[in-house]
Amino acid sequence: MMDEDVENGNLGPYQDRPRIFPAMRSKPYTPLILRILMGVNVRVLIVLLVFCLGAVFYVGARTSPIIVFVFTICIISFLFSIYLAKWVLSKDEGPPEMAQISDAIRDGAEGFFRTQYGTISKMALLLALVILGIYLFRSTTPQQESSGLGRSTSAYITVAAFLLGALCSGIAGYVGMWVSVRANVRVASAARRSAREALQVAVRAGGFSAIIVVGMAVIGVSILYAAFYVWLGVDSPGSMKVTDLPLLLVGYGFGASFVALFAQLGGGIYTKAADVGADLVGKVEQGIPEDDPRNPAVIADLVGDNVGDCAARGADLFESIAAEIVSAMILGGTMAQHCKIEDPSGFILFPLVVHSFDLVVSSIGILSIRGTRDPGVKLIEDPMAIIQKGYSVTIFFAVLTFGASTRWLLYTEQAPSAWFNFALCGLVGIMTAYVFVWITKYYTDYKHEPVRTLALSSSTGHGTNIIAGISLGLESTALPVLVISVSIISAFWLGHTSGLIDEKGNPTGGLFGTAVATMGMLSTAGYVLTMDMFGPIADNAGGIVEMSQQPESVREITDVLDAVGNTTKATTKGFAIGSAALASFLLFSAYMDEVAAFAHVPFREVDIAIPEVFVGGLLGSMLIYLFSAWACSAVGRTAQEVVNEVRRQFIERPGIMEYKEKPDYGRCVAIVASASLREMIKPGALAIISPIVVGLLFRILGHFTGRPLLGAKVVAAMLMFATVSGILMALFLNTAGGAWDNAKKYIETGALGGKGSDCHKAAVTGDTVGDPFKDTAGPSLHVLIKMLATITLVMAPVFL
Amino acid sequence: MMDEDVENGNLGPYQDRPRIFPAMRSKPYTPLILRILMGVNVRVLIVLLVFCLGAVFYVGARTSPIIVFVFTICIISFLFSIYLAKWVLSKDEGPPEMAQISDAIRDGAEGFFRTQYGTISKMALLLALVILGIYLFRSTTPQQESSGLGRSTSAYITVAAFLLGALCSGIAGYVGMWVSVRANVRVASAARRSAREALQVAVRAGGFSAIIVVGMAVIGVSILYAAFYVWLGVDSPGSMKVTDLPLLLVGYGFGASFVALFAQLGGGIYTKAADVGADLVGKVEQGIPEDDPRNPAVIADLVGDNVGDCAARGADLFESIAAEIVSAMILGGTMAQHCKIEDPSGFILFPLVVHSFDLVVSSIGILSIRGTRDPGVKLIEDPMAIIQKGYSVTIFFAVLTFGASTRWLLYTEQAPSAWFNFALCGLVGIMTAYVFVWITKYYTDYKHEPVRTLALSSSTGHGTNIIAGISLGLESTALPVLVISVSIISAFWLGHTSGLIDEKGNPTGGLFGTAVATMGMLSTAGYVLTMDMFGPIADNAGGIVEMSQQPESVREITDVLDAVGNTTKATTKGFAIGSAALASFLLFSAYMDEVAAFAHVPFREVDIAIPEVFVGGLLGSMLIYLFSAWACSAVGRTAQEVVNEVRRQFIERPGIMEYKEKPDYGRCVAIVASASLREMIKPGALAIISPIVVGLLFRILGHFTGRPLLGAKVVAAMLMFATVSGILMALFLNTAGGAWDNAKKYIETGALGGKGSDCHKAAVTGDTVGDPFKDTAGPSLHVLIKMLATITLVMAPVFL
Repeated sequence: MMDEDVENGNLGPYQDRPRIFPAMRSKPYTPLILRILMGVNVRVLIVLLVFCLGAVFYVGARTSPIIVFVFTICIISFLFSIYLAKWVLSKDEGPPEMAQISDAIRDGAEGFFRTQYGTISKMALLLALVILGIYLFRSTTPQQESSGLGRSTSAYITVAAFLLGALCSGIAGYVGMWVSVRANVRVASAARRSAREALQVAVRAGGFSAIIVVGMAVIGVSILYAAFYVWLGVDSPGSMKVTDLPLLLVGYGFGASFVALFAQLGGGIYTKAADVGADLVGKVEQGIPEDDPRNPAVIADLVGDNVGDCAARGADLFESIAAEIVSAMILGGTMAQHCKIEDPSGFILFPLVVHSFDLVVSSIGILSIRGTRDPGVKLIEDPMAIIQKGYSVTIFFAVLTFGASTRWLLYTEQAPSAWFNFALCGLVGIMTAYVFVWITKYYTDYKHEPVRTLALSSSTGHGTNIIAGISLGLESTALPVLVISVSIISAFWLGHTSGLIDEKGNPTGGLFGTAVATMGMLSTAGYVLTMDMFGPIADNAGGIVEMSQQPESVREITDVLDAVGNTTKATTKGFAIGSAALASFLLFSAYMDEVAAFAHVPFREVDIAIPEVFVGGLLGSMLIYLFSAWACSAVGRTAQEVVNEVRRQFIERPGIMEYKEKPDYGRCVAIVASASLREMIKPGALAIISPIVVGLLFRILGHFTGRPLLGAKVVAAMLMFATVSGILMALFLNTAGGAWDNAKKYIETGALGGKGSDCHKAAVTGDTVGDPFKDTAGPSLHVLIKMLATITLVMAPVFL
Repeated sequence: MMDEDVENGNLGPYQDRPRIFPAMRSKPYTPLILRILMGVNVRVLIVLLVFCLGAVFYVGARTSPIIVFVFTICIISFLFSIYLAKWVLSKDEGPPEMAQISDAIRDGAEGFFRTQYGTISKMALLLALVILGIYLFRSTTPQQESSGLGRSTSAYITVAAFLLGALCSGIAGYVGMWVSVRANVRVASAARRSAREALQVAVRAGGFSAIIVVGMAVIGVSILYAAFYVWLGVDSPGSMKVTDLPLLLVGYGFGASFVALFAQLGGGIYTKAADVGADLVGKVEQGIPEDDPRNPAVIADLVGDNVGDCAARGADLFESIAAEIVSAMILGGTMAQHCKIEDPSGFILFPLVVHSFDLVVSSIGILSIRGTRDPGVKLIEDPMAIIQKGYSVTIFFAVLTFGASTRWLLYTEQAPSAWFNFALCGLVGIMTAYVFVWITKYYTDYKHEPVRTLALSSSTGHGTNIIAGISLGLESTALPVLVISVSIISAFWLGHTSGLIDEKGNPTGGLFGTAVATMGMLSTAGYVLTMDMFGPIADNAGGIVEMSQQPESVREITDVLDAVGNTTKATTKGFAIGSAALASFLLFSAYMDEVAAFAHVPFREVDIAIPEVFVGGLLGSMLIYLFSAWACSAVGRTAQEVVNEVRRQFIERPGIMEYKEKPDYGRCVAIVASASLREMIKPGALAIISPIVVGLLFRILGHFTGRPLLGAKVVAAMLMFATVSGILMALFLNTAGGAWDNAKKYIETGALGGKGSDCHKAAVTGDTVGDPFKDTAGPSLHVLIKMLATITLVMAPVFL
């Protein structure tokens, strides 16, 4: 009954500028598995938990002491995250009008999450069956034959890893959303007391999901590794070598990126279609402020922040870390094998240790952001400075722990100074991350030249604003590409000259050096994700404050936090794309190794002078353009539906503008939810199907023309060109979107005529165009790049 | 004095809606060389001409009968083009008010052309010195040593070819502009009588410059080839082999693309800055129609059509044909050498013959468009249908002559059926051109779904219009890429299976097959260029009609012709990018051969799995983004200057809007001219310097790390990735721009609210954004792609 009321918007009339909304619905949704667990006796649960932990540690202990170390840190981090969650939840939910709005947002978000992940899990199961079929009928590698790893075993292993990756990615998304729909109202309530407290609540809520996401990526890979190690009897005579083990984990990365892709697409379309639709009618046509309760699309917009930014970004970063860990483990194993290092486990498990320390240093960073004791102090410092200080603390400890880890795990008597070279590689990665964040800030922050010029160009009209924004975005690709180029080459050379040599005496640590740089870049992922999650929570808190019509002073506080969140969101995107570029380069090498293993012939080069390979490159780049086109147009189409619905409501219920009638929020939520579920399928399917189709087609062509590796080569070129185009396109989309957003914010501070001027209207147009760029197509491309790399790796047998 | 008046806009007040403008200036500018020639006695000239012709034919006869054939056709075509020019010039210039406007346009265009080409020629001379220096100090190839071609000889040859290419490209641009500034007023005048006559005048004027451009490309290469052949004593014992000769012509292609790049950049910035500036204030702010005489930027806009569309496109197509001829000759020579074909001249000279026939069939196509005898008939047929019919006639004859040429020149006893395979390759190329034109039409014509959807999205605001346009542009890259892929692979395989085998028995005709397909694609270049030139002439005629305030019925005729011109302009861009893609792929192979010859080692693969090579690819793609960014932002910045100037004039001279005061046209012309000269330098320099810098840097890195080919490989990857990214980016920019333009035109036909509605305003914003896309950045990318290919070829010795 209540549900129906929400959907039909029959929530009763306003009471003369009411501060209390009629209860919308307050029973939070609990996933089935949690409900079952909660039904069980607590003591039984504890016994079960202890038993599970014991089993995990037992398996870990049989594998390697390093694994035990990783397990321990992960368990401690989970306990720490529970502390953070309890701390956040212990904060008050504020007055009832806030709680009611928050409930409506939670309902919308959880409802969409359920339907979306229902669809995704069906697709994942289908794909699992396909993979199973392929692996059951493919040929086995000589290593597998010698180790007795049969066809069916490897099929089950890959599928199990895939499903576990998909499940963990889903949980990562759920956790991100779970905390944000609960923290938003608490941040809003805290903002009534002090800015510092609101900041702290938002950071700790973000920190909770960041720790869970990173921890789950680490422990997931560790458990799989340890389980396979024990189950397959690795390193015992006649069975598999430990250096081949990481290749079995590829399915985990693929599962994670598969779910992340659809989560990001669906969530991204949802959030931006609602946002664009709400802005176009509310801000431009009716001239009411953002998040005004009279706007029928406002709840959909706020729901979107949670499902698009929190849930999707959680899944995205989870996938980044998982893919990066797996690819670095593969490269470490391959190198250790080539160099005949006696105990290769240090090289293989290095990424897990790096990310364990990541959990520790990020926790320190999160804790370094504290509230003040004096409740009277409203805003003593720029919140951006506080968050930056926390980042500096995190980086400082990350450098220390990274150096220690290299000395601990990468020291080998064959090349006594190699660990130091690798520590420098890590430093290269950390510096790359820092420079990336700085460049993104330069191009998207209105304190700097580019955004100011963009704002100025709005004064001559919509057209010049768009031209200037697009030029800015295209130009902003240059510096990151130069930085990535320098760091790839310098890390490669640091690794190459590390003194590690293979049987033939050739230096061989180059690729692993690049891998270590990638780990360095991601060694503060926990804190970066915290900064990222902070944004949508603060945004939502601002929305709740506005909708519940709190005093102006409260709104000011959340506005400042929201602006800071915009900057951190933009900068973490730069971070994400940089790490995606490096991770793809690693996965590409792993792919070539895998193909060589299957084909029983060396596969070292992808020669773009062959026409078919060149065509593969063309198709790869084209895939990026088509994917971006479909992602953007999905937002555009859905936004048009929202615009028409909102216009209709304003016409049919003229009382809305005078607060006399209630807008039908539920209708907009329903429109956006169903449209984004529908629209995410096309680009997602394109991304998954096209590399497989291209690989198969050229495999057949190669078969008839006597070139057995043709399919694999064409796919390799497709992957490389798609990666390069994807990096550039994502940089362009993210930066242009961020710059437009902040150009608008700059004008709203009163520059160039301020709010309501023609210049502002032109800037709002730019912001609207930038929305699908920076929050739908751009982040989806991050995921796409890594998904392409993992899908080709898993599907390698199909192309031969 | 008069000059000053124009520049200061002191042209006296309007006489109550005047139809006569005070004379602006009527002395046309004649280049120095023409003035000298005109000063000489006619009889002396004729004697000189006969002497020159005799010398040319003598050299040709000593080279090959094929060259004599080519010379003959070119001379006949030049005579035909003189007939066309005389025919056009014999038409009346209409009433004095038209002639005066036309004079103002001619002054502006010729003034800009002089300054622009002055700058370009200084840069070309500088670059010639650089090339000379490099070639004087480079190492020689074994072939050169054996043939006695010394270092200094090859240096002078390359520089001479470069300068001749640059000169011819400049002449091609000048001819395009020369005829269009004279034809515009004659078309306007003819439109007062009949649409059919106006169409015929515009087509013949376009045809004149098309024939000159194609003919000059053919005869330029032929003369160089024949001169080098005779001078170097090719094929006589102990000297150079004829199969190596085409490599000496590379400088010609580079010179042509160098000039074309700056012509396109400068002209493109000029035309679109004036257009955007005029539209933003005139159409959007003041609500006056396009080309209204009250708009101070209108003359600048009309001048822009001539310098941007006519002159620049002439240079662009000239460069396309020159680059394609040279690369196909190189490949033909290489293949003939590998296959030990006895008389390789057929394979080498094939492209010259194809383009000779191109001149013939295009002339037939141009002549097939006739006026009606009945002067009373205003408009009996859709002009698009008439032009299309001419295209069909041209294609029909092109297929016949292409087949005949393959049988004549590519028949060899070693592989008796090879010529038929190559004829099929040509057919693939012709079909590719046709399909490309069709796809572009589908995405940019408002008779089809995409543009209608785009127009519909304007109804929900500026933002959704831009999002939809960008999605449309990104999506439109997919089909052309698929078509190019299919045609590259199928032409390659047709060539591969032609039966031609090298010494070791391997099939070797694949690449030449692709080359033949490219020639097939360009085998109707003359007619396509005619269609392209038609557009700006019709556009200008419309402007003259509007400014001289002719009756509505005349304006209607020129409006129809203008709309047709828009479509043909868009479709020929698709054609240009398709041929650029194929030509670059050929030049890439030539580059690898050249590097192998210099380095004395085989150079067959560019392996993108090497980090440095991958970085080269990243940098190549980035170059495209940065270049596009700078090209777009140059237009945006200049347009802002125009907007501010026009706004200033409207404020300072309030009488303008009531026809009481004359706007200061000269001021806008001066602003746009100086800004575009300034702005073309940055992107142009980037395009020329960056491949050289990258090649040198990695050459040094390779030197220190013991990999001698590193520089050449990195440049190769850079070139390939830049080509792929450039094709996609150009397709995106051209199609999005064309679609926005036509979506606006569709709304102006009365759909979705028609002119003046909010929907129309949003569509005008889209059109403004599309202007620099489709007429500055997009076409500059076509040229950039080919210039990169030729610059790497000429600079190959630097990278080793």
